[in-house]
Amino acid sequence: MAGNTFGKVFRVTTWGESHGSALGVVIDGCPPGLELDVIDIQKELDRRKPGKGGGESPRKEPDQVEILSGVFEGLTTGTPISLTVYNKDAQSKAYDHLQNIFRPGHGDLTYLKKYGIRDHRGGGRASARETVARVAAGAVARKILAEYDISVIAYTVALGDVATSKRNMKDINLNRLHCPDIAAAARMEELIDSVRKKGDSLGGIVEVKAKGCPVGLGEPVFDKLDAALAHALMSIGAVKGVEIGAGFRAAGLLGSENNDAITPKGYRTNNAGGVLAGISNGDAIIARVAVKPIPSISLEQDTLNLDNEPVTIKIGGRHDISAIPRIVPVCEAMVCLTLADYLLRQKAVEN
Amino acid sequence: MAGNTFGKVFRVTTWGESHGSALGVVIDGCPPGLELDVIDIQKELDRRKPGKGGGESPRKEPDQVEILSGVFEGLTTGTPISLTVYNKDAQSKAYDHLQNIFRPGHGDLTYLKKYGIRDHRGGGRASARETVARVAAGAVARKILAEYDISVIAYTVALGDVATSKRNMKDINLNRLHCPDIAAAARMEELIDSVRKKGDSLGGIVEVKAKGCPVGLGEPVFDKLDAALAHALMSIGAVKGVEIGAGFRAAGLLGSENNDAITPKGYRTNNAGGVLAGISNGDAIIARVAVKPIPSISLEQDTLNLDNEPVTIKIGGRHDISAIPRIVPVCEAMVCLTLADYLLRQKAVEN
Amino acid sequence: MAGNTFGKVFRVTTWGESHGSALGVVIDGCPPGLELDVIDIQKELDRRKPGKGGGESPRKEPDQVEILSGVFEGLTTGTPISLTVYNKDAQSKAYDHLQNIFRPGHGDLTYLKKYGIRDHRGGGRASARETVARVAAGAVARKILAEYDISVIAYTVALGDVATSKRNMKDINLNRLHCPDIAAAARMEELIDSVRKKGDSLGGIVEVKAKGCPVGLGEPVFDKLDAALAHALMSIGAVKGVEIGAGFRAAGLLGSENNDAITPKGYRTNNAGGVLAGISNGDAIIARVAVKPIPSISLEQDTLNLDNEPVTIKIGGRHDISAIPRIVPVCEAMVCLTLADYLLRQKAVEN
Amino acid sequence: MAGNTFGKVFRVTTWGESHGSALGVVIDGCPPGLELDVIDIQKELDRRKPGKGGGESPRKEPDQVEILSGVFEGLTTGTPISLTVYNKDAQSKAYDHLQNIFRPGHGDLTYLKKYGIRDHRGGGRASARETVARVAAGAVARKILAEYDISVIAYTVALGDVATSKRNMKDINLNRLHCPDIAAAARMEELIDSVRKKGDSLGGIVEVKAKGCPVGLGEPVFDKLDAALAHALMSIGAVKGVEIGAGFRAAGLLGSENNDAITPKGYRTNNAGGVLAGISNGDAIIARVAVKPIPSISLEQDTLNLDNEPVTIKIGGRHDISAIPRIVPVCEAMVCLTLADYLLRQKAVEN
Repeated sequence: MAGNTFGKVFRVTTWGESHGSALGVVIDGCPPGLELDVIDIQKELDRRKPGKGGGESPRKEPDQVEILSGVFEGLTTGTPISLTVYNKDAQSKAYDHLQNIFRPGHGDLTYLKKYGIRDHRGGGRASARETVARVAAGAVARKILAEYDISVIAYTVALGDVATSKRNMKDINLNRLHCPDIAAAARMEELIDSVRKKGDSLGGIVEVKAKGCPVGLGEPVFDKLDAALAHALMSIGAVKGVEIGAGFRAAGLLGSENNDAITPKGYRTNNAGGVLAGISNGDAIIARVAVKPIPSISLEQDTLNLDNEPVTIKIGGRHDISAIPRIVPVCEAMVCLTLADYLLRQKAVEN
Repeated sequence: MAGNTFGKVFRVTTWGESHGSALGVVIDGCPPGLELDVIDIQKELDRRKPGKGGGESPRKEPDQVEILSGVFEGLTTGTPISLTVYNKDAQSKAYDHLQNIFRPGHGDLTYLKKYGIRDHRGGGRASARETVARVAAGAVARKILAEYDISVIAYTVALGDVATSKRNMKDINLNRLHCPDIAAAARMEELIDSVRKKGDSLGGIVEVKAKGCPVGLGEPVFDKLDAALAHALMSIGAVKGVEIGAGFRAAGLLGSENNDAITPKGYRTNNAGGVLAGISNGDAIIARVAVKPIPSISLEQDTLNLDNEPVTIKIGGRHDISAIPRIVPVCEAMVCLTLADYLLRQKAVEN
Repeated sequence: MAGNTFGKVFRVTTWGESHGSALGVVIDGCPPGLELDVIDIQKELDRRKPGKGGGESPRKEPDQVEILSGVFEGLTTGTPISLTVYNKDAQSKAYDHLQNIFRPGHGDLTYLKKYGIRDHRGGGRASARETVARVAAGAVARKILAEYDISVIAYTVALGDVATSKRNMKDINLNRLHCPDIAAAARMEELIDSVRKKGDSLGGIVEVKAKGCPVGLGEPVFDKLDAALAHALMSIGAVKGVEIGAGFRAAGLLGSENNDAITPKGYRTNNAGGVLAGISNGDAIIARVAVKPIPSISLEQDTLNLDNEPVTIKIGGRHDISAIPRIVPVCEAMVCLTLADYLLRQKAVEN
Repeated sequence: MAGNTFGKVFRVTTWGESHGSALGVVIDGCPPGLELDVIDIQKELDRRKPGKGGGESPRKEPDQVEILSGVFEGLTTGTPISLTVYNKDAQSKAYDHLQNIFRPGHGDLTYLKKYGIRDHRGGGRASARETVARVAAGAVARKILAEYDISVIAYTVALGDVATSKRNMKDINLNRLHCPDIAAAARMEELIDSVRKKGDSLGGIVEVKAKGCPVGLGEPVFDKLDAALAHALMSIGAVKGVEIGAGFRAAGLLGSENNDAITPKGYRTNNAGGVLAGISNGDAIIARVAVKPIPSISLEQDTLNLDNEPVTIKIGGRHDISAIPRIVPVCEAMVCLTLADYLLRQKAVEN
């Protein structure tokens, strides 16, 4: 039942298959009078484009976005904003041999069993290509956040077994992995090379930080801000875990270690990750997501075909080695969408 | 804006403050013709009752639930089910000295800043007592799951720095910590004793397992089953992280290690935690949550008072040392609520 | 699927059966800091009480409301407000003879076919008694409207074939039918007497007027203010038609007659009924509803029993002759709920 | 706040301005496996096309629809269906002289006051052209209804002061006004001619009939089927009233006249209009809507300009004389959307 809408006040509804005609999003609830240019959206899309990341021979998509409604003379009008990106380089034929076989780690089998039918071309709706629409919508949300001086940035803190030991924010844009630790980034690149040669793939961890968020966002008890962020981030295909602030590490701390003392200058520490009792506390909001390795690998795997017979499969074609770094702007987009929605939701609470 | 409803088809709306007259829940969307007795709900409430867990001198609440509507001659009628639990042992006076001071790690400050007013008595709506209503509703959801032969069980897999090394399911009910590893449970009890003496508190990790779930639950792309579970579990007050299947460990695996091979007998492994592309795959659904240490400790902490002056606070009174084990039935309840909702949502997809 | 919630930001969820233990409502999304006393609600409930209207020997219910949550020291806290009214005078035995027979004009048959089960006692959830919860919630909504100086008043403009020819607002509270035309009210009383003697019943028309509404309420294109009002009013059991402003009369007017000219002092006429293009225009909002005659009559009617056999039925017992005037505060309540919701929805649009 | 989505399970989100690049709709929640061809949608769009109705020199739009997602090899896949219609004949220049003046009876002023900005070109989002998206979505809903053998047909029962006295269904397609009374249709044409000469415009009444609806649709107490239909139909721009079954006439009937007796062969009459207690009863569902006269007239009207100065306006250009008959397929579409949604909602109730 209807799971393609995110948000309650700033509502985005996405649509589109990997190898269909186009993908897009309708944004309903964007406040009027916001300056919005197609460039604002295009530059975010360019960040997640094939070829920007660790993949070798990815699909070539210009991913050119069009604004079809909701903007008049450069300003949003309060009516729905429709954004569309046409697919140009969908080589559906490359997937013909996969239509009778279920790729391990992908949604091929669950989609077929759920819907009784599936668009096998490039994973259809289950493709990571679906995130084009998220990033496009996130760009609009980011414009709203900018009015509140809220910034959202994501970066790689682990790739496979290589973890960062630093958070040098200025390094993030100095390496294609968006890693705030240049030395770690170099080791990650070596790891990518070696894994690529083996025909295998890698996972990792992405951290997202939102700065400048006002106190008060979050709607207890079920729509707490952290619950909404967990929902938003876990809805990204490759994500298998979400934590806020100290996260899983908090489970091993004592209360006296985990509590963030309150001082006249603010909280002394930020184990809470900027959210207390489900409401933003004014500190930086920190979330981390666990990204599983790309399931498409060229190593041989056991699986079944449509006739339920055991077969083996090697997946060639145009695949990335890891969802990182292309997932980085997607994580940012989901946090932007969540915060924009909660900023608007909070308006109903305030006088 | 209105965050006290969970679910889209099986919808629960909870209400009530820790020291108000009562707490309760309205369940809208429960299918008609389901056998429902007050005992079904009472027995789940009894599992989360004060005194059942690791706390020493907790509040004594009978937590007696009443069914006020929606059931006729022992069967649900399809109309809203209203469940109410009156507060009997609310010693509000015990909180009088806390009304002008913000307890670290609690929502005192964020609630006040968000709403401009707060019911300080026992934490008001931000109290863990709010979960009474979740557990009551979860008991009804569990009745629906039973019709599909789905079972949901949660258990403690870590308390502080003591982790379980076994999953002996039959041991879970043999120790009050609901730990599937008797030896670990003993060490956990020792840890509780030592931490209690220090006046500190503990966090931990709870795992939830749902067995018997049919293939097909989950509504991509935003209402994926794992996204909904993350939302549900992260909405519990003390939870700071949620992971599905291999979770954060998956970030360090290779694709060839993480992919679950498909065989005629089913998936060979379950790193997916029962969810592929956001849709249940028929395997056990596995989620783990990070539970932060109880913020109420009797050690001295720095904080502010209402006049924004630095003060110190020691919190005495009737507090548990850890949210574990009383959070265990709450985790089960949230998973039951999610699965019941998605079972009903799936009906709209099927012919 | 879950139809017992009204509103998107100011959300009310009602529950309760005519002869169950209690009825009530949970209001989620009420702004914090609003003064709210139980008297505010009780006085509205007293207006719809049995005995207040045209019925002769109605059920005697004190309809005493309790506020169980969401209010602290006389102010709303932003958390859910739970209101409960216990049933005291439910004479369920009086309905025993009706459990095997379907009353014409009632929901007996449709409820049974929809849900496969029904609480036959007094109509269960389909009873007009359900509106107790609407009126209680409406009283809270009215407090919000008061902060904007918006007033909502309903009155009887027709009963059976007797129509009012005046709108003397000050007369409304001078007759129990809430009719703004004293002479018409007298004729309506005569009609009631004569119809009661025949054992028959009456319908009528109620008009609702909201004054002081700011320009800008309404969310095109589907949640236009008039669409929301139509939804709200048509959801009242006995209502079979809703019109705004000139309504059905507009169908016969020329454009030059129907258009409201705009002048520096405002609109010259109000055929629009205060809503243009789905958005309030600052003029009084005017809606009228057609109320069908009470279906419970003591005249003999043809119907079926549970075995699908033709039988006749005469319905005695404690019934009103007309839903008017007791429906008057219910109409007001639904308009108050709608306007409160749209006032809060509009906040997300404004800067 | 986000009012461009209709439906809860079968959810449609429309977008687009009269003179923007395109209009469209995203349908989320359409069941998979449904045969859907672009022709199914195009043929409905052709019915509401400019030039089909009473207008003299209307805009010439091919209104060619494209399916951009959600359909694979001729079948719906359960993923969102995106439909787009590009605007081809948008003569925005024709509206330049209107950008500083508020047309009486239109949303020019309310839109500006609500949003602080408006797309004046052709009425922007408030244009009747918005209904293109409704009709496109309605065509998909109709395919679902066809699987249940439900038909939905609308027809003109009054134009200005000319009312039909017959319901000869076979005549509906024999006259361009979709009137089931050929003689009345002839008089209506004469009326159109005379009103056109005067530069004025006409309203009317449209009736919609849905046959074959199963018993049980409707979700009390707020989402009753008649409440949903009222919402759906009143959300159409020109509609000022909605009634079900006997509607406003019921207000003047006695209970003994209005009640539909129940017989072994079904209900003897259908004053209920197919809905009892908010639930479909198996009889034909009958709704009527009051359509106001087109506000764009070439007669001189008083109004204001952007500087709040009194001015007069005569609206020339390409306008219809009446929203009838082009509103007829729009009314059908809204009823189709409502019924499709409620058919799917009912699945969650059934076993």
